Formats: sequence, structure tokens, C-alpha cells
Amino acid sequence: MRPLRIAIFGFGTVGSSVARILTESKPQGLELTHVFNRDVTRKRVDWTPANIIWSEDADAVLASDVDVIVELAGGIDPAGSWVRRALEAGKSVVTANKKLIAFHGIDLERLAARKGGHLKYGAAVAGGIPVIPGLEQGLVGDHIERIEGILNGTCNFILSRMQEGAEYAPVLAAAQAKGYAEADPTEDVCGFDARAKLAILMRLAMRVQIDPEEITPRPITTVTAVDFSYARDLGCTIRQVARAEQAEGRLAATVGPMLVALRSPLAWSQGTENMVIASGRYGGDVVFSGHGAGGHPTAVAVVSDLLALAHGSRRVEIPYAPAKIAGEFEVPHYIRFLVSDRPGIVAAITGALAGEQINIRAILQKPGYPADALPFVVTVEPCKSSALQRALASVRAMDCMLVEPLDLQMLE
Amino acid sequence: MRPLRIAIFGFGTVGSSVARILTESKPQGLELTHVFNRDVTRKRVDWTPANIIWSEDADAVLASDVDVIVELAGGIDPAGSWVRRALEAGKSVVTANKKLIAFHGIDLERLAARKGGHLKYGAAVAGGIPVIPGLEQGLVGDHIERIEGILNGTCNFILSRMQEGAEYAPVLAAAQAKGYAEADPTEDVCGFDARAKLAILMRLAMRVQIDPEEITPRPITTVTAVDFSYARDLGCTIRQVARAEQAEGRLAATVGPMLVALRSPLAWSQGTENMVIASGRYGGDVVFSGHGAGGHPTAVAVVSDLLALAHGSRRVEIPYAPAKIAGEFEVPHYIRFLVSDRPGIVAAITGALAGEQINIRAILQKPGYPADALPFVVTVEPCKSSALQRALASVRAMDCMLVEPLDLQMLE
Repeated sequence: MRPLRIAIFGFGTVGSSVARILTESKPQGLELTHVFNRDVTRKRVDWTPANIIWSEDADAVLASDVDVIVELAGGIDPAGSWVRRALEAGKSVVTANKKLIAFHGIDLERLAARKGGHLKYGAAVAGGIPVIPGLEQGLVGDHIERIEGILNGTCNFILSRMQEGAEYAPVLAAAQAKGYAEADPTEDVCGFDARAKLAILMRLAMRVQIDPEEITPRPITTVTAVDFSYARDLGCTIRQVARAEQAEGRLAATVGPMLVALRSPLAWSQGTENMVIASGRYGGDVVFSGHGAGGHPTAVAVVSDLLALAHGSRRVEIPYAPAKIAGEFEVPHYIRFLVSDRPGIVAAITGALAGEQINIRAILQKPGYPADALPFVVTVEPCKSSALQRALASVRAMDCMLVEPLDLQMLE
Repeated sequence: MRPLRIAIFGFGTVGSSVARILTESKPQGLELTHVFNRDVTRKRVDWTPANIIWSEDADAVLASDVDVIVELAGGIDPAGSWVRRALEAGKSVVTANKKLIAFHGIDLERLAARKGGHLKYGAAVAGGIPVIPGLEQGLVGDHIERIEGILNGTCNFILSRMQEGAEYAPVLAAAQAKGYAEADPTEDVCGFDARAKLAILMRLAMRVQIDPEEITPRPITTVTAVDFSYARDLGCTIRQVARAEQAEGRLAATVGPMLVALRSPLAWSQGTENMVIASGRYGGDVVFSGHGAGGHPTAVAVVSDLLALAHGSRRVEIPYAPAKIAGEFEVPHYIRFLVSDRPGIVAAITGALAGEQINIRAILQKPGYPADALPFVVTVEPCKSSALQRALASVRAMDCMLVEPLDLQMLE
């Protein structure tokens, strides 16, 4: 068997780790032949086999006799056009590009099938944790009704540090210093990255094809140290969670910071770890956890996909149905207010909630905060976010409200 | 595409769950056509499609036009001969039979390859948790150096109940009443079941083919409530763990009750849950957890394997190398003695340990026990079990020892 000839597009942390594993482990059937990067001379290393072609000419590499393009540049452009051209030429593609797969994965898979190539993206969700093969192979016989995931290592690093008492801004700065967060952290902290990954998991687990933009993610930037303090009093911590549920034919999906019980698996994940819980009608909950990001773990998923291609392992093709996000979760909520204290605030809030038939579970006000910047918390019994937002509309307009009330779903 | 014609051999809990999923979910490409069981009339149910053939004639079903035998009878005989005959005839086999796969899997795989059929056994280890596809597909690009697993739901049920204060005998009786333990629990509590599963995981994760009988499992039957009490003082609990490690070309493997830190993932598993932690050179630790046994979770793995067959998904074929268990773990140990107290016991023990260059970490003796049946604990720094056993040889012969000292590895 002739080995698969492999070109890496994008020689950053992950690309370099892929080259490292291919060079050190020499997996049977794989041969690294090309590395493409802009300004490639500054990327060149001396520990790869000498006969590799280092190129800054994407066209030339795409036109060469390579069998597989490993796309690690990320983003929609120009990565998407490289992927498309490789598939058009009948080559296969292995990618870690969640955005491209979330928004264009179905088209690209059809293109691959038409041209005789294959598209694999095991590294696109939860890097080194085999969630995608687990769903595609091991759980395909179940009917997955719910997915809950910690899918963004940057947010998990920030929130698990805040759990220990830190505030958002210095932790973000530390994450940036360690290379865990980008200079512009928007994609991560505002939930766009996790949303793309959730859309991919929904496709594989629930067999629905959604437009990711139907999910409005909520940022973690509004969570403060005081929220972790109140969360602890409630036996909880705070994590960025991506969730989807399929119940009675209605699909619900949401991404954002949420309260999770300290004894729940979601609270186990520390630092940049990722976790996915898939709940099946027949098999119950399955938990996958590990290092979701980073060069080496992500590279393991890439090399595993390459080996699957080399050994003729094909995925189980289950048809997807297009679907709309039409449902809403009915869960308890945590609402934290920051007010300049005056009489009547609690009465106004409780009245507004009662007007939407929302039952209050608890009102918490810890001592030790100044009256002109007083945080307090209301938790409510399971209700729809839309009802809660209607109830909060009048409250949020009160001039004593110093910031927008922070509304977090509580996972039980 | 003609659907795969499926015969279930063994219509117990799992067989019935497989039929249930095939009937309810109607997965594309699968058709249940035969059910074989001894005395089949007492097994017959009314909710399967009417055209299924219920048979107590294995030969007739094997000679029929079925494409896949789902072997759920368990054990080496006669299940092994059915599997062999099906593969000889070019049919494929899906099985949950860990013993058969651990002892004869390689031969059966070769037979399948020779005759053009396939052998799949995703349900043989950790039932509903996709550990096998995770290792075969998602982690095949890594170099797995260590596997730690909670692979036997019966033992985990017993030990997690004992953690709450119960003694072994009544918990075993409760497990038997719930159907979690067999009337003869030897296979489970003495570790033979976990050993077979470990051998399979070692093959897939470490690519070594071992004789499972080279691993001598230790029973959980000697663990008592007092050990949980001491374990808690050490920040630990006790679980039946199956472990293997490949370091410097030496392979170590062991199965038995061990102390695990309360904050380690292994302590998370409650009741009949299973867990596997695979540690890769590149990807670090990956944790899989969920319901390892029971009809429905195991059936999910079976149906997933059937779908993989129907959709032409082939495994990544990595060659195995035959290997011997030649290494030993060097870990701290917990040793609990039960003595009729008299002067000189601790001196004798510490002397014996010193003679083997084993360092003592702690000596614990809780108050409140009678002097004529006094439990106390010695923990030691990392050492080989063989050295510890030599040290304990003279101690164990002392006439004040009421039972064999209980030696448990401590996982850190």
C-alpha cells in the first residue's frame, strides 16, 4: 500500500504538533510531504524528514500529488477555499476548523462524496477527546436526546480561576499571557466558538442541520466574583456550557455561563479541560472529558483521522434533517441584581415575576456590600427564558439598577 | 441497499434490549430476522415484528441467510463455536462476550478477515460507553502509555455502597437481589471479568496481545468497612481498578481493589457506572464514563456496531505484537493488619519493611477497636508489590495475625 501523502496547511501550534507526531511515531501508511504557510521560512524546523517541501504557494501544493490536505489555518477564508479546491480535485481533507464545518460542513461533505474524497474533522470539537468518533461510531445506535458540553478551554480556564476568587480582567490577562486566549478574545468569551462546536455536535448526535446563528450565545464577561460567591452558597459553580435538547420534536439550544452543581460532572472540569455529556434514550449519560485544546491533543485527533483515512475506515453515514431551534429550556434561573439600594426594589422584582407566573425559589442577600452598589440574588423555579426576560423588562428600566441584571440558567 | 439480516443468539436482558431498539428505532439498513435461544417459547415476546423466526436450533439459524450473528450468550462454549461457525461461513459477528474476545479475539479476527466477514465487539468493554471506538478511531493517533479503568459494575456497586458504611455480605446480597450480581459472583468479585476487559483494552490501546492469565486479579472480598474508614482518613476511597502501563518497553498490568483519591476521576463513579482513563503521550488523559452494563446501554453498543457494519465503516487495523507482563508498578501501598494486640508487632512489621528497603509513610491506628481484633494500617512509599510481599512473608506467619494482611495499591 502506497502511504497517504499529506500536506499540512498552517504550521502553527497544532500543525507543528501534527508534524511532530508524524515524525516521531511514524504511523503506518502516512507520509508528510508538504508544509504550506505564508512566510514559510520563519516556520521551518530542522527535525522533520529532510525531503519535505516547505512552500508558501498554496496553489502549487493543491496542484501537487498530495492525497490529503490537513487544514489548520482556521476561519472561513481562505481556509474554506483551499478545502473546497482540494475536495474538487478528489483529494481528502482533515481539518480542525469548527467554524468552517459548523457553517459549511454539509456542503463540503457532499462535495467530498461527489468527488470521491473524504472530509474528516475529529479535531474540530473538543480536540483530543474522541467525542466525534464516540458519537459517530459508539453511540450511533442510541437516540441522543440531550448534549451538554464545556467546549471552550479559554472560558473554562477563566471561570475555573474565578471560582478560586479572581476577577475576570486579570484572569483574562493571565490567559492571554499563557497563550490560552487570543489578543481579541471575542470568539471565545462571547460564545461563538462554543456555538460552532455545539452545532457540529447537534448534527452528529441529534442528526439535525441547524443554522448556528439561530443560537444567540451569552458572554461570560458579565460574570463577577460575587456571582461565584453566591453560586457557592447554592452548592454550585459557574461554567460556560453549550446545551442542546430534542424533546417532543422541538429543538432547544443555548450557549453561555450557567450555574452547575458542584457535584455534577460539569464542575469537574478544571483549567482548559473540555467535557461533553451525551444523554441517550437507551444508554443514559455518557461523559467524555480531557484536554480539548492545545497543540498535542488536537494533533492526536488529526493524526487519528489521517489513520482512519489510510486504513479505509469510513464513517457511519446517517442522514441529517434541516431543523429550526424552536424550543426553549425550562430550567431554574439565577438572577443577580446590582442596585443602589432603596425601598421597594424587591417588591418590584417579585411583582414583575408574579406577573409572568414565575415562582421564586430563594432571595439571597449576603452582608458586607455597600448600599450604593448592593448585589443580591433571586433564584426562580423552572421557567422559560422568554417569560423571564419579559418579567425583567420593567425591572431593568428602574433607575436604581446599576447594571443589567445577570440571568444565568441553573443546571440541575 | 439490502438491509443486513440479523440473528440474535441469546435473548436475555441484552438480547431483548437489542430487539427493542431495532423494533422501536428502526435503524436504517438493519433487519432483525431470527432469534435463537434454548427453550425459545418461554422467551418469545409480542412486540417484535411478526415475521421474525424464533428458533431453538442454532444449526438452522447458522445455516440460514442471515448476514450477522449477534452473540449474547456469553462464555467460551458453546458461544465460541457459534461465532467460529458464523465467521467460517463468511458471516459477520457482533458480540458482547469479553471472555471470548480476551482469550480468542485475535484468532477470531484473523478468521473473519480470511473469510470476508467482520468481528465487532464494542459492547465487550464498558457496555454503553464508547471506549472501544474512542480508542480505535479517536486515539489511534496517540501512543497510549497507561490505562486505568473501573470495568466491573458489580464491584463498583458493592464498593460504592460500602463507602457509605455498609459491609460486604449484605451489599452483595442486595446486588444479587437487584440482578447486578450473579448467584455465583466469583467472575465479578474476584476480578476475572475486569481482567478480560483489561486485556481487550490493552490490545486496542497499547497494541499488545497478552495472555490474560498472566494477570493475577485480587478479590474485593477481603475489603471491610474498616478499610473505607481508614481510606477516608487518607483522603481516599476504594474501587476495583484495572490498570496497565507500558513504560520503557515493559508492560505492567494489575486488577484488584485499590485506594483512589476522593478527588480523582476514579472516585466519581458511583453504583454500577464504569470509567476508563486513557493516558496518551501526546493527548494526556482522556476520561470516558457512563453506564457500563445493563441491557439498554450494552444494546446501544451492539446496535452501533451493527450500524457500522451496515454502513461499511471499517476499523483502523493496527497490528498487535505479542507481549509478556514483565513489569511491576511502583506505587505506594496501604497495608491493613488485623491482630490480637501484643507488644512487638509494629517493631516486627517495620523491621521486615526496612529489610526490603521499603520506606514507611504513615502508621494509623484509630481508637475504639478491641485489643483482641485490632485493625491498624501502615502506608508505604512507592515500592514493587513483589518486594512488599517478601517483606510481609515473615509478618504474615506471626500467630497474632488474625487474617492475611490486606495489601492495596494506592493510586495518586
